[in-house]
Amino acid sequence: MTIRALVFGENVHEKLNETVRSIYPDGMHATIAAALAEDGAIEPTTVTLQDPEHGCTEARLAVTDVLLWWGHKAHGDVSDAVVERIAEHVWQGMGLIVLHSGHFAKIFKRLTGSPCALKWREAGERERIWTVNPGHPIAKGLPPSFVLENEEMYGEPFSVPEPMETVFLSWFQGGEVFRSGLTWQRGAGRLFYFRPGHETYPTYYDPHVRQVLRNAVHWAHNPAPRWTDVTQAPNVPVQDAPERIEERGPKLHKPGEEGYR
Amino acid sequence: MTIRALVFGENVHEKLNETVRSIYPDGMHATIAAALAEDGAIEPTTVTLQDPEHGCTEARLAVTDVLLWWGHKAHGDVSDAVVERIAEHVWQGMGLIVLHSGHFAKIFKRLTGSPCALKWREAGERERIWTVNPGHPIAKGLPPSFVLENEEMYGEPFSVPEPMETVFLSWFQGGEVFRSGLTWQRGAGRLFYFRPGHETYPTYYDPHVRQVLRNAVHWAHNPAPRWTDVTQAPNVPVQDAPERIEERGPKLHKPGEEGYR
Amino acid sequence: MTIRALVFGENVHEKLNETVRSIYPDGMHATIAAALAEDGAIEPTTVTLQDPEHGCTEARLAVTDVLLWWGHKAHGDVSDAVVERIAEHVWQGMGLIVLHSGHFAKIFKRLTGSPCALKWREAGERERIWTVNPGHPIAKGLPPSFVLENEEMYGEPFSVPEPMETVFLSWFQGGEVFRSGLTWQRGAGRLFYFRPGHETYPTYYDPHVRQVLRNAVHWAHNPAPRWTDVTQAPNVPVQDAPERIEERGPKLHKPGEEGYR
Amino acid sequence: MTIRALVFGENVHEKLNETVRSIYPDGMHATIAAALAEDGAIEPTTVTLQDPEHGCTEARLAVTDVLLWWGHKAHGDVSDAVVERIAEHVWQGMGLIVLHSGHFAKIFKRLTGSPCALKWREAGERERIWTVNPGHPIAKGLPPSFVLENEEMYGEPFSVPEPMETVFLSWFQGGEVFRSGLTWQRGAGRLFYFRPGHETYPTYYDPHVRQVLRNAVHWAHNPAPRWTDVTQAPNVPVQDAPERIEERGPKLHKPGEEGYR
Repeated sequence: MTIRALVFGENVHEKLNETVRSIYPDGMHATIAAALAEDGAIEPTTVTLQDPEHGCTEARLAVTDVLLWWGHKAHGDVSDAVVERIAEHVWQGMGLIVLHSGHFAKIFKRLTGSPCALKWREAGERERIWTVNPGHPIAKGLPPSFVLENEEMYGEPFSVPEPMETVFLSWFQGGEVFRSGLTWQRGAGRLFYFRPGHETYPTYYDPHVRQVLRNAVHWAHNPAPRWTDVTQAPNVPVQDAPERIEERGPKLHKPGEEGYR
Repeated sequence: MTIRALVFGENVHEKLNETVRSIYPDGMHATIAAALAEDGAIEPTTVTLQDPEHGCTEARLAVTDVLLWWGHKAHGDVSDAVVERIAEHVWQGMGLIVLHSGHFAKIFKRLTGSPCALKWREAGERERIWTVNPGHPIAKGLPPSFVLENEEMYGEPFSVPEPMETVFLSWFQGGEVFRSGLTWQRGAGRLFYFRPGHETYPTYYDPHVRQVLRNAVHWAHNPAPRWTDVTQAPNVPVQDAPERIEERGPKLHKPGEEGYR
Repeated sequence: MTIRALVFGENVHEKLNETVRSIYPDGMHATIAAALAEDGAIEPTTVTLQDPEHGCTEARLAVTDVLLWWGHKAHGDVSDAVVERIAEHVWQGMGLIVLHSGHFAKIFKRLTGSPCALKWREAGERERIWTVNPGHPIAKGLPPSFVLENEEMYGEPFSVPEPMETVFLSWFQGGEVFRSGLTWQRGAGRLFYFRPGHETYPTYYDPHVRQVLRNAVHWAHNPAPRWTDVTQAPNVPVQDAPERIEERGPKLHKPGEEGYR
Repeated sequence: MTIRALVFGENVHEKLNETVRSIYPDGMHATIAAALAEDGAIEPTTVTLQDPEHGCTEARLAVTDVLLWWGHKAHGDVSDAVVERIAEHVWQGMGLIVLHSGHFAKIFKRLTGSPCALKWREAGERERIWTVNPGHPIAKGLPPSFVLENEEMYGEPFSVPEPMETVFLSWFQGGEVFRSGLTWQRGAGRLFYFRPGHETYPTYYDPHVRQVLRNAVHWAHNPAPRWTDVTQAPNVPVQDAPERIEERGPKLHKPGEEGYR
């Protein structure tokens, strides 16, 4: 079975900043998609902020198993309607992988219900990423730790909900630490945050980072049919109760009336 | 130390529906506040949807330790700005207790990042509430189970994030079950959902329910000073790094520039 | 890839009790294995308490992906050494599915670090099993709820650690509820407890129960190589530190000395 | 209300090693107890491995709210019967704080059901401890991070169950990271692991470490009455079922018979 991965790239720094463009001439999303394509079981495609509806149309999300999200400078330009659409697809079972500065993406804040804030420093310092659980699918094939010689620092506190699992921790040369790989579930959808990926460094060419991305796509893929009524609140009429009961007492709702939202 | 509890009542059914008014002549919020007032360590006050800013002004929330929320028919009338304000206070450390039909309140959906949907039936059937962890502070003084002879049924699946703790489960006469007492954390704030409380039944006069409310206020109270910068993402300049490092490589941000949001 | 599932059956009631024998003439383990064999991707085999080392030799566990455990009357006869061996394989990545009265199996208490106690009643009453998360792999293909017309009741509180996920809840005719499908992780191993399966009823012939067993085997299977040094506490000599440091201050351990356990 | 804290010190290194004795002339337990005594709400006492039953008699544990445990060289000398007794008290509601090398203490491995292994290096290197959640009660009054100039390194992977909460992370000079403050629950008892505290360094004189210890005692204290039947599995006779049911089908157990364990 092929996993259909959709890579969203903000694609703004690549246009405005020569350093970023020189590292990622086809856009960061292209490099990320190329990393995924090294796995024959993953079929990656890409969209960008500039596409109509940022490429995240209902039709496109309906055929997406896992969405990867890289954004930074233009979080505010992402349409609220698209964010809600993505959230609903995640609840229904689409996986979501949020990368680096995507911690402040609307969709990440929406699904975590949290500020998702952190400390940062852009000094090209050394980051060591340690695996907390070598048996986790997202850590498949990784060494106990690996190094990114130049990265932006992100430091705790990272104001996200307690995760389901902590997969990676980062050590920074400047003295900070960070929970760099965290998982959550929302409805039928799996959510993974992965820290590295600052646009002025060639992080998405690192083979370990690329392995994590591929592993994460496999992990986030829920092959179950979409949970299409995850937002519905159906009434169960008295006559359809699993056990036979008699209606008693006063009622607010008229028969057949919908609940309030 | 006194815990300052603020009870938000939607206060709409009480005005429109004679049954509800007859049970809660002063409004459901008044009955809930009276339950809290039975505990000398809790100082309850009330606000309603009809108050300016629903009573949840910045000044009011700043002196609130725990907010209790009952809403149903008029979720849509709650101001989005007020919802964001409440969310920020929760992240900073204010406790939040969401009651019954509040599962669809904007603030609950906001903080859980989830649909919060469920099945329902209004038949006045019997509910048995079982304690899953008798040692939990919210279960203090409760029997192994207690009965509400007439309640609305809420049935699984309840599309919320996996909780930190499951405190109560409900058995319904008609054959359904529900996770009726669930806890989460968001930032420094503690969040508790408690299922019972349909407006056409005298649930908030039940002594066990009232005990749960008081226990929950104690549990949700975080005496720590507010985490006022929970949404901030401060830059740590190179010269302030805990360990001495040299700046290396290209940079996107100018010195002193704020991060993107 | 085939998943190698090993079904442990206590195989005592089948010998001593005519009712049990009449339902499970080849032993409960045989019926459970037959349920698994309906999935071509699962290759089930069986062992019993009476086998040398209960069939759970080092060699056998080394080629087992997922172990299923049904025990009841003879928990105390299970060798402590075998329990430790199983625990170590779970930590290394072997899945474990504990069934029904296995809640008091030594291996379940060992891995949860908890009493695993509950209330019970053997009255052949009706059990309804509700899915809490329809998108969970263990719920694949199941209806919102299903009925076992005759089952033993298990009631809360179930003294186990808060689970990673609650997959199923049970409603009992007599008024109790139970968290019937719970997951945890230990090391690289996934652990699932599934409640139904009293020996005097034909539960393991129920098609939904059989579906759950097959789903659970898939879920509990960790294809990663075994985490063979999960119990080791290796010293990292100063000269092998990822960052260059100088040894400072007093030391307790001599160079090359093992740590204390 | 006074919290009765019992400090268990192994008290072996202090006798055998001059460095340790010079730092902790009255034993590490005495220094830890002194740190607790700075909080008027905590009433600390001490016991050591050499006391009869290691001082952890049934009578003593019955009047203990929170037990703190420091052990290292002599884990194997701790009586298994005492370990089981402590576990049962934790399940009933006694708090437990496990310190540093106590990660390999029998009681910690018993309650986590895990190997609790890690990497280590004794080089007197610098440790920075970062608070992950400044609003957590255990982080009360602490700065964003604090430094221990000389400590033993503990490195991931730390093979413990996913915690309820991650409170602290450590950065080490040599390049490793560690989850240094973790919480769990077992039954009615709260469990906290805190990493620092190597015997050859004056860690327990550090004011921040001492603050953590006091905070943790407050957090781990469960004022509820002990859950005395947490290990019991009572039968609920048919006539005592909450809802009236008729007994049906075959039974294994005779009326009044106890369940199997």
